[in-house]
Parts: sequence; structure tokens; C-alpha cells
Amino acid sequence: MASRQFEPPSGTRDFLAGALRTREHVFAQIRGVFERYGFEPLQTPAFERLETLTGKYGDEGDKLIFKILRRGEHEATGEADLALRYDMTVPLARVVAGYGSRLPTPYKRYAMGPVWRADRPGRGRFREFAQCDVDVVGSASPLADAEVVCALTDALDAVGLREYRVLVNSRQALSGLLDVYGVPVELGGGVLITLDKLDKLSPDKVAAELVDARSLAPDIAQALVGDLTAPDAVDRMQTALKDSEAGRAGLEEIGRLLELASPKVGEDRITFTPSLVRGLDYYTGVIFEVVAEGMPGSIASGGRYDGLISALGGPDVPACGGSLGVERIIGLLGDDEGAAHRIDVAATVIAEDTASEVMGFAARLRDAGLRTEVYLAASRKLAKQLKWAADRKARFALIYGASDKEAGVITVRDMDSGEQSEVPADELAAYLTGRCAPSR
Amino acid sequence: MASRQFEPPSGTRDFLAGALRTREHVFAQIRGVFERYGFEPLQTPAFERLETLTGKYGDEGDKLIFKILRRGEHEATGEADLALRYDMTVPLARVVAGYGSRLPTPYKRYAMGPVWRADRPGRGRFREFAQCDVDVVGSASPLADAEVVCALTDALDAVGLREYRVLVNSRQALSGLLDVYGVPVELGGGVLITLDKLDKLSPDKVAAELVDARSLAPDIAQALVGDLTAPDAVDRMQTALKDSEAGRAGLEEIGRLLELASPKVGEDRITFTPSLVRGLDYYTGVIFEVVAEGMPGSIASGGRYDGLISALGGPDVPACGGSLGVERIIGLLGDDEGAAHRIDVAATVIAEDTASEVMGFAARLRDAGLRTEVYLAASRKLAKQLKWAADRKARFALIYGASDKEAGVITVRDMDSGEQSEVPADELAAYLTGRCAPSR
Repeated sequence: MASRQFEPPSGTRDFLAGALRTREHVFAQIRGVFERYGFEPLQTPAFERLETLTGKYGDEGDKLIFKILRRGEHEATGEADLALRYDMTVPLARVVAGYGSRLPTPYKRYAMGPVWRADRPGRGRFREFAQCDVDVVGSASPLADAEVVCALTDALDAVGLREYRVLVNSRQALSGLLDVYGVPVELGGGVLITLDKLDKLSPDKVAAELVDARSLAPDIAQALVGDLTAPDAVDRMQTALKDSEAGRAGLEEIGRLLELASPKVGEDRITFTPSLVRGLDYYTGVIFEVVAEGMPGSIASGGRYDGLISALGGPDVPACGGSLGVERIIGLLGDDEGAAHRIDVAATVIAEDTASEVMGFAARLRDAGLRTEVYLAASRKLAKQLKWAADRKARFALIYGASDKEAGVITVRDMDSGEQSEVPADELAAYLTGRCAPSR
Repeated sequence: MASRQFEPPSGTRDFLAGALRTREHVFAQIRGVFERYGFEPLQTPAFERLETLTGKYGDEGDKLIFKILRRGEHEATGEADLALRYDMTVPLARVVAGYGSRLPTPYKRYAMGPVWRADRPGRGRFREFAQCDVDVVGSASPLADAEVVCALTDALDAVGLREYRVLVNSRQALSGLLDVYGVPVELGGGVLITLDKLDKLSPDKVAAELVDARSLAPDIAQALVGDLTAPDAVDRMQTALKDSEAGRAGLEEIGRLLELASPKVGEDRITFTPSLVRGLDYYTGVIFEVVAEGMPGSIASGGRYDGLISALGGPDVPACGGSLGVERIIGLLGDDEGAAHRIDVAATVIAEDTASEVMGFAARLRDAGLRTEVYLAASRKLAKQLKWAADRKARFALIYGASDKEAGVITVRDMDSGEQSEVPADELAAYLTGRCAPSR
């Protein structure tokens, strides 16, 4: 039994080769898509000044910030002055504020990397996990919203997740909805939080919560939940919202997003979904979630949040963006152990005095792009070294004994078939590159 | 003047697109080399349990560890329980201890990523900086030492640094040297620390420090420094060390490393350097540094440290490894702003009702691998949008007006020559991919 002292800290993970390659492959695919859209990468430090982060994530969020103790003589105060990055958005706001006009306008950036939250660790919930965001800062155009939706869904396509649907709504439409149904303004926020549970709870339970916890009149609660969950909810909303200015504006921005994103996403995969709320209260315009069959929750989400950058300390600029649920996506894909990353050539060393020549062969094969390992343990027994070659899943093994040396050849063993061929030293690289699939 | 509150914390950096692309290009080149050698990637968490790190880096090192405050009700104690990664070696020792036989034998791993040290920030010295290590754990073979040297120098070649020399020595040779020159054993450590300054101070100053600070007899200090800095130092050492058992073992391991690494590194680029010491006292066998003309200090270094993994909490296994000075290397290469990452296509939007079609054109170009941006600001004036296309360094701009739509064509403007061509919509991707260099 391994001692707990050798495990990574609670809620964190060591990524060994197989899992790490899967992760990096996913990140590379996503990065490729974002680059094709002209988003620019941004990498900010792992920690920020504590005051940059506090007060930005609500009381609950503040408790989950990892704080870094002052150093040197100040350590004894027990005070913190730095804190680990909690998300990618607050650092973005700081960068937009600090760099100003030195950034392109609009500033389209993507950020991929770890964030840290002192949440209770659980299944699929970590204290160090990757976030993957795209944002457009400085554009109020519906084209920007559409680009965000297209970039995120294109990234899902790129990592092989194609069975998804994009649910679209608008904060303006929701605000019009509350107005039309006569929900008092001061109850609006709480009502939306409860309505957000329509994807998890039955309509009856949601209606009951609206009455019990949100003080809504029973008839209003029933009408609201009934209309939102009706088979013809979209039609009912389109009719109802016509009576509200916010409602009409919301319907228009939803319509525009559907029109602009459909050519890429596909008309059947993107739909107005009146019951979509999204809990976070900083959204101001269109909101969206990407859901996939058989998976609870969303695999991507986002929206327009025109006031957020200034609320986080940046300038007052319109902005929209979204995130991929990249840890969930990686979890769906599993580890890439084995075949995909087998090594090409395992070079055995069966006599001390040929080691230098074997190193030379390995150097030439590596220069030719082949993934080549040299046997580094002490044994000079061939059988033991061929066992190692098999364990390393090598495609070929090299054997270079006294008779090979005399004949100016290297014995190449096909580790799949067991066949051996004698290859002249100066033909070795060509012989093997022709037989190994490109490893990258 | 930008307010300091928007700067990243002291000693850390924001990496915007240009600088970040340079960094990632360097990392990718290095990674490619390490993979060809069969090193496997390992990524450990940003933080470790505090007790995993404390006491591993000496008193000075302990003061530079960033400590993370306990959370929740424990925050008020002002105590820390976690700490940011200080190097890549202690996490490696933990992983080797924890995973044991589930790792390949030997375990050849590379690690690239940030570490954090609360050093006083200065020119080229950061509190968050990247380390890039290769290590072979579980092999006592000189082949392993040679592979480490070859992998690191190969990586330097890959990033375009080719004017370097590899200086080689051995801790056993140094220990034999002290023995032969009659340095009392208890003074040995201090004497080596002073001898390590021979690359910075004059021989006289080093000899004086040996007498004043290390209590060495003046004649011994003179002889030692004189022989180590003589033009024929290698010959003098080879003669002197023959009289010591450790000295002979040291000469042998140096000779073996030179023999095994020379085919790859080149005989003229790797030399026995008797005055090379390397300050860190955990080395047990060969040591090396890679130096480049005109640069103070080293751009890569390492050696064999058979006792280190167990001293750091891991099992008692032989090991060797080395690091690339990757921040220095990146500093030498400069930023990759501009031409290398210009976008391929800037799609203008000159009429609201064609926006959806323009999005569709952009989608097709991105699918064809072209880096394509759509104009996201409010203006519908062509001149303003072409100015934007020029600012974004686009190779081509697309213009799609009412007459284009009627004729079923898109106007493609070559942003370098200013020439415009009308291209049928279904030929657009082929037309542009043929004219844009592959961007990746």
C-alpha cells in the first residue's frame, strides 16, 4: 500500500505520460481551432495580488481562493498578499485595463491553463483543473456572440464530440418574461435561480420552490413554469414577449445569433430554449449552453456580459465569451495509453565496447524523427533486453553484436513478427523510417 | 501611465500573443527532442504539501518557498499547509516513491513548466519561471549520463543554439583531487564552493579565498589553483589523479561519458574541464555544464546524483539528469511578433444583411485551415474595415457587397499588392489556400 505522503495533495493529480498526452492532444486541437478564428493566446501568472481577486466571486467564491502567505519577516503575521488564479476572466480584466490600446480592438483572446479552487474534492471535481476560455472584449456586435459560439462548437467537433445541441436564450428575453408574467422586480433574481433548475427538477417541484422559497404567487408560478415547459414553449414565448420592450430586444438578439451561427453549427443543432437561465448574474445579453446526449450539465457555455470587465476592475467595454468544460471533455475521451505512443526503435547494448556505436545509431535515427530508446540498465543479456523492448512497445529492436560489427550490419528485429533482418549501417535510418508510421 | 494595480505581481509576467508563441515554439521544439529519446512527460500539481518541500532546499531555499495559507476555519491560524512547486526534482522523487513499479524501469521523464521562488526579482530573474528537466531514474549506466547530455544538447540544436561547448568533470575526480593535494576532508566542501568561482574570479583571488575563508594552507591553495588553471590542466589532472582511487574512478567515468556522447555532440564540443565544480552538493558522479560564447553562466547543466531521490523522500535508486536554462534561451531568441503569425484572411462585413453569408465563408476557410477573422466592430465603412485588415496583418481581405452577391462572387483583395479579384463563392477556399503559406 502506497503511503499517502507520496500522493499529490488532495484534489490535485499527477499526470503521467498516457493521461498527459491525451490532455495535451485535446488542448492542441482546441488551440488550433481558436487560432483559426484569429483568437490570440494570453497567459497570465499563476497568482495575482490578493486584492485583485477578493470580492470578485461572491462570498462563497472568496472562501475558495487559495491565498499565499507573505514571505520573509512578514510570514509571521499569518497574512496573505497573493492568491492563486481562480478563473481566467479576472486576469483578462486586469490585462485589458493595464494594456489598453496596446491590445488589438476588439481583443479576441483565448486562455487555457490551470485554475485553483479550494472546493471539497469529489468525483470529477478537482482543486487544480484546466479552464479553456475564449472572449471578445470591445465588440457589441452580434457577430462576436456568433463567433464565440462557432469557435467553441468547432473545438468540440475537433476533439471528436459531435452529438451536441446548442441551447440559446437571452437575459433581456428572461427579463421581459418576468415583466410579462407580473413577477415583481425585486423577486426577479431569485426566480431566475429557481427556474435554472428546470433541467434537473420536475416542473411541479420548480413551481413549488417558486412559491415557497421565492414568494411568488401560486398562479404566476404555475403559468410561468407551465409555459416554459410546454412542448410549444418557443411559440408561447414569442407571443408573450412581444408585449415587452426587453422581451422584443431579447427575441431579436436570439434570432440574430441563430441566423449568424447556423451556417457553421447547423440549423438543427442550435435552438432557442426559453427555459435556459444560466445561474451567473453577470450576463447581459444572449446566453448559451452546449449539451450532449447522456451527459448531465453542459460541455460548453457562455454569453454576453457587457458590464463584467469594468466590474472586475477593467474599463467599461462590451464583451462576450464562453468556456469549454475541458476537464469533462477529457474525462469522456479516456487515456491514450499504449499503441498510439509506442516507441519506434529500442536499441539493445549487448557488449560494452559497442555502446558508443549504438549511441551513434540511435542519434541518427532520432535525427530522422524516430522515437528511439537505448537500453540503460546493467544487464548485457539479449533476452532480457528484448523483454525490455517488448515492455516499451517498441516497433523494432536493434541488435549489434561482434558478428554484426564485422559484417558492417545491424540486426533489426521486427518486434511484432519476430523476423530479423541484417541492415547495412548506412541504410539503417532509411530502412526504419520507411517501416515506422510517422510518430507525430 | 498605467496604474501599478494592473501590472502582474512583482516578479511575474503576462505573456501576450507574440511572446507566448515564442515560448511555446521553444517548448515544442524541446519536447520533440525529448520524445525522440523516449523520455516520457510528467506533470505534477502546482503545489505540494508543505512538508514535502521544506528541508529539501537548504535554509536559504526554504525562505524562498511560496506557502499557501490553510483554508476555511483554519485560515485564522495564519499557518500554511501547501506550497508552490520550487523545482521539478522533489515532485519527481515523490512520484517515483508513490508509483514504484508502475513506472517503467529505468524511468526516463521530462518535465517542463513553471516553478515559483520568492527571490528578489531582477533583470532576467523571476518569481514564476519555467524549468525544463530530463532525468533518468533507476540506471547507474554511463549510457544514461550520455543520453542526458545528448538530449539536452540536441534540444539546444533544435532551438537554434549551436555555438556551445559541453564542460565535463566528475565529483569523484574532484574528491580524488582534494585527496591528492592533501586538503583535509572536513575542508573539502568549502574548498569546492570556492573553486566553483574560477569561472568568475581571477586565480589569485580564488587562491586567497581558499586561504582566508576556507583555512587552506597557502602552498596547497596555490598549487591547486595553479594546476587547475594551467593551459595543460587536463594533463596535470590526469597525472595527479592516477594516485587516488576516487581520482582513477572519476577519470574513467569522464572518459566513458566523452566516448559515448561524442558521436552525437561532436568531439570538439565536449571536453574534460578539471575546474568545473557545480555548486550543488548532491552530485555523486559526472557533472556537466553547457556554455556558449559571450554568455556568462551556463545554458544547460546536470550530472549524476545517486543519493538524491532517496534524500528527497524517494527510494534509494541511482539517477542522473539535467536542466535547460530555458528562460535564458527564450530571452536570447526574442519575441515572435509580426510576420510569422499574420492572419490569412480578414473578412469584412459591409452590409448587415450579408453578415450571415460572410460567417459562412469564414467557416469554410477555417475548415480549410486558414486563419480567418471576421470584422466585429460596428462600422460598416469599407475603408475603416480595410484599415483593420491591414492592422491585423491579414494576407487577404474579403469584400462581399450587393453586386458581389448578385454575381455570385466574393471580391478578394491582396493586402500586400492591393490587387482585387472576383472569385466564385465555391472556389474561394481553393483560391485562398493555394495563395496562403501553411500557417502551421
